[in-house]
Amino acid sequence: MPALSLPLYIDFGATFLFAITGAMFAIRRHYDWVGLFVLALCSGLGGGLLRDGIFINDGAPAAMRHAGYLWSVIAGCIAAGFFHRHVGKLDRFFLYVDALGLGAYGVVGSTKAAAAGLSLPASIVVGVVNAVGGSLIRDVLTNTEPFLFKPGQFYVVAALAGCASYVAATEWLHLPLSIAVWIAIGITFTARTLSIVFN
Amino acid sequence: MPALSLPLYIDFGATFLFAITGAMFAIRRHYDWVGLFVLALCSGLGGGLLRDGIFINDGAPAAMRHAGYLWSVIAGCIAAGFFHRHVGKLDRFFLYVDALGLGAYGVVGSTKAAAAGLSLPASIVVGVVNAVGGSLIRDVLTNTEPFLFKPGQFYVVAALAGCASYVAATEWLHLPLSIAVWIAIGITFTARTLSIVFN
Amino acid sequence: MPALSLPLYIDFGATFLFAITGAMFAIRRHYDWVGLFVLALCSGLGGGLLRDGIFINDGAPAAMRHAGYLWSVIAGCIAAGFFHRHVGKLDRFFLYVDALGLGAYGVVGSTKAAAAGLSLPASIVVGVVNAVGGSLIRDVLTNTEPFLFKPGQFYVVAALAGCASYVAATEWLHLPLSIAVWIAIGITFTARTLSIVFN
Repeated sequence: MPALSLPLYIDFGATFLFAITGAMFAIRRHYDWVGLFVLALCSGLGGGLLRDGIFINDGAPAAMRHAGYLWSVIAGCIAAGFFHRHVGKLDRFFLYVDALGLGAYGVVGSTKAAAAGLSLPASIVVGVVNAVGGSLIRDVLTNTEPFLFKPGQFYVVAALAGCASYVAATEWLHLPLSIAVWIAIGITFTARTLSIVFN
Repeated sequence: MPALSLPLYIDFGATFLFAITGAMFAIRRHYDWVGLFVLALCSGLGGGLLRDGIFINDGAPAAMRHAGYLWSVIAGCIAAGFFHRHVGKLDRFFLYVDALGLGAYGVVGSTKAAAAGLSLPASIVVGVVNAVGGSLIRDVLTNTEPFLFKPGQFYVVAALAGCASYVAATEWLHLPLSIAVWIAIGITFTARTLSIVFN
Repeated sequence: MPALSLPLYIDFGATFLFAITGAMFAIRRHYDWVGLFVLALCSGLGGGLLRDGIFINDGAPAAMRHAGYLWSVIAGCIAAGFFHRHVGKLDRFFLYVDALGLGAYGVVGSTKAAAAGLSLPASIVVGVVNAVGGSLIRDVLTNTEPFLFKPGQFYVVAALAGCASYVAATEWLHLPLSIAVWIAIGITFTARTLSIVFN
């Protein structure tokens, strides 16, 4: 897989989307604004921090070097503050937002892991960690049994399908990165959406 | 901000103070001495390990390279063992001890983050993580909803105010480090103390 | 202590054994296969990831560079799938399996920490983290009060005794590595087994 980096807006976009879902979680739990910001931070940056800080471990995480990541989290907090009165109507909409972030972060994680020279199965694992790590940290910090252990959610499965097909498409089929990215995000989004619709 | 390191005794002092609070937590929960040592270790070194191991990520954490950190934890365990009979009388005293450690660790974290080339908002975040990380890990490991999510404690706010003023004082006002350190510790200590007094 | 690496089969063996115990935990909790794999991964690789990703912090963790670690986890999942019908009969057997993995991972952790230039007390701590980290992460993720805080299990004590005697044997008595390894694993296994028999 080429040591190619994805455009930064995919990263910022996924951070923003996940920060919103973290902030909504805090609002639903009636946390104050400190809890809201902490959960938005964990949800938005947690997966990437685990990826860079533990699994790749090559200098300071991207989220700490470019201030844009933290501004994306703050933008997510503000967006959640505006939207939260419409939660009832927008609940399902945020599940789709989350499904999109899931696909985007999986692709980002697998790309960075492969570029850092990790083994192929490790690249798939790191993609999944990048995708689900934020919600895992959020659940652990709020003392909740992690969402991803609940059967029938296909949360991990959707991320895994996207990351595995991404690694296969770039490594074995040698598809151009720009095509492989959208195939992988599409597969994750479809798998997760189908599980939302049929549950 | 100059790549200046603070005197090591601030670091050892904060480790010692936080190790005491972790050990007191274990004593109040009737853990055996293994649990006491593990909680003292997490409380004393957890914030610094998160800082060095995840957020800065530049070689082995300071706490692993200098044996003095682990001796500070052991000294904290012994001190807690001596004091624990007087817990009833000293409870409030330890809240002030904790407030002092909170300020000291925030300053240490922000200094190290800035010296490692992290972005300015990231330096503030890392200072806060350094300050509150130990108690966060302690709460997660003991399966408690983290203390810092409880409204009205101003725990994160106090650390944030100290770290932000520290970064502002050194970066924008160009105050000497020795003055900025005590301003920041003073702000954190005052903010936290006021919330203790009025709650 | 020489910067000597242990044969890789000790590492793979401990990963396999701990992945089995993680998978059995998931089966007992009626998780689906995603939960089973996630817990096997955390139990099998968690201690080593904490060691490399946080405490030693020198490039990507071993478990991410050699695909063999992930295959060991998958082999552990398959083995647990075959054995789980015999859980009632094999429960005690798995406690011994776990005690063996505990000793092996403690030795691996202390060796790698000393080779990375950590202080001597830090090498003992990292050995213990390597040994108990997987089960700690498993307990945190499943929202359980960590097993190792329960009094009378001697889980941490057994790992600590093994790691401390290992560091003492190689550093002070200058015993050959091949002898020190088996002494340390033997001490951990015996200490843990005695606590199982008498509880």
